[in-house]
Amino acid sequence: MILYYAPHSCALASHIALEAAGAKYQARRLDFRANEQRSPAYLAVNPKGRVPALVTDRGVITETPAILAYIAQTHPDANLAPLNDPFQFAQLQAFNSYLCATVHVAHAHRIRGTRWADDEKSIAAMKKKVPQNMADCFSLIENEMFTGPFVFGETCTIADIYLYTLGTWLEGDGVDIRQFPKIAEFQTRLKVDPAIVRVMAAQNSK
Amino acid sequence: MILYYAPHSCALASHIALEAAGAKYQARRLDFRANEQRSPAYLAVNPKGRVPALVTDRGVITETPAILAYIAQTHPDANLAPLNDPFQFAQLQAFNSYLCATVHVAHAHRIRGTRWADDEKSIAAMKKKVPQNMADCFSLIENEMFTGPFVFGETCTIADIYLYTLGTWLEGDGVDIRQFPKIAEFQTRLKVDPAIVRVMAAQNSK
Repeated sequence: MILYYAPHSCALASHIALEAAGAKYQARRLDFRANEQRSPAYLAVNPKGRVPALVTDRGVITETPAILAYIAQTHPDANLAPLNDPFQFAQLQAFNSYLCATVHVAHAHRIRGTRWADDEKSIAAMKKKVPQNMADCFSLIENEMFTGPFVFGETCTIADIYLYTLGTWLEGDGVDIRQFPKIAEFQTRLKVDPAIVRVMAAQNSK
Repeated sequence: MILYYAPHSCALASHIALEAAGAKYQARRLDFRANEQRSPAYLAVNPKGRVPALVTDRGVITETPAILAYIAQTHPDANLAPLNDPFQFAQLQAFNSYLCATVHVAHAHRIRGTRWADDEKSIAAMKKKVPQNMADCFSLIENEMFTGPFVFGETCTIADIYLYTLGTWLEGDGVDIRQFPKIAEFQTRLKVDPAIVRVMAAQNSK
């Protein structure tokens, strides 16, 4: 499999999941500064012009929640999701959907405001609201969703990998993680997880 | 099971899926004009204060992609998703994730702009861009994703139910659906699907 990613993007979650699953894969970096995600060659892989995209021998999978569930389902021994319990699987998917459609979207208004408005003042106004929105999201996660020591208790799942990825954005978004003690401890702990260390080393070496 | 919904919201997808699956459920309407989704009683069900929320005997499931996959997995005879093929399931999940995190989000900037900016001019600027963004999304769906006669070919799945739901928003968003011939035909065809007719009758009778 080939994973297309860009540094500091949500594709980090898929990269970590592949590594944690012991999957056979290559990671290919796209240069967003050169707008490589909009090149004809990449648009042939993913017409959305975004990362992540996971190329499998049957075709391309996009969208982080879909890729994460796919990795978990095709690597059951890695125990990255409760695959045999539809209710628990739904809880995990609900968590990942919240990260994708609410938390990531809140973050995207800081540097991708041109998606939703054209004038500079509006784009600046969106950017201004990002710290509060991200803090609200992580407050809800801290107080209503996070069981501890992992999102759903004792087992590290794709929900944890995704949460860790978005948690690394807080500082850049102007949010002090220390107001969320459980998540702060979680981020510190996962930062030295062997799979995450290997992925960060690979991404930083290129 | 109890499904909490509001008219004209994305909860319609979960409502149709329950009906199409032959599930045993009750649908309970929330009055968004009275801000019922922010009442203490409802926040105890779903701390996010949003719909849909599906109450099961094991707990509450939120987020449309998670609820749809749950309904499909717990009602396999309804054949609403390729449950035994992780790649095809991932393709379906990727489609639903795009609807949730990109298309629904594009739409939300028309009437929920206060989520992302505080001043009236910025909120108006976001609203102004909605027709173009929604048209871009549906253009991508029409040209790159929609196989026909359903999203993934011959079988109606939860992806079709979700697409139909968001397709009903186009007119209100100022988008002429006739520029997407395949999706226009799809919307017309599904509008008279028996399960969808029953759900609309139930929602309109209250």
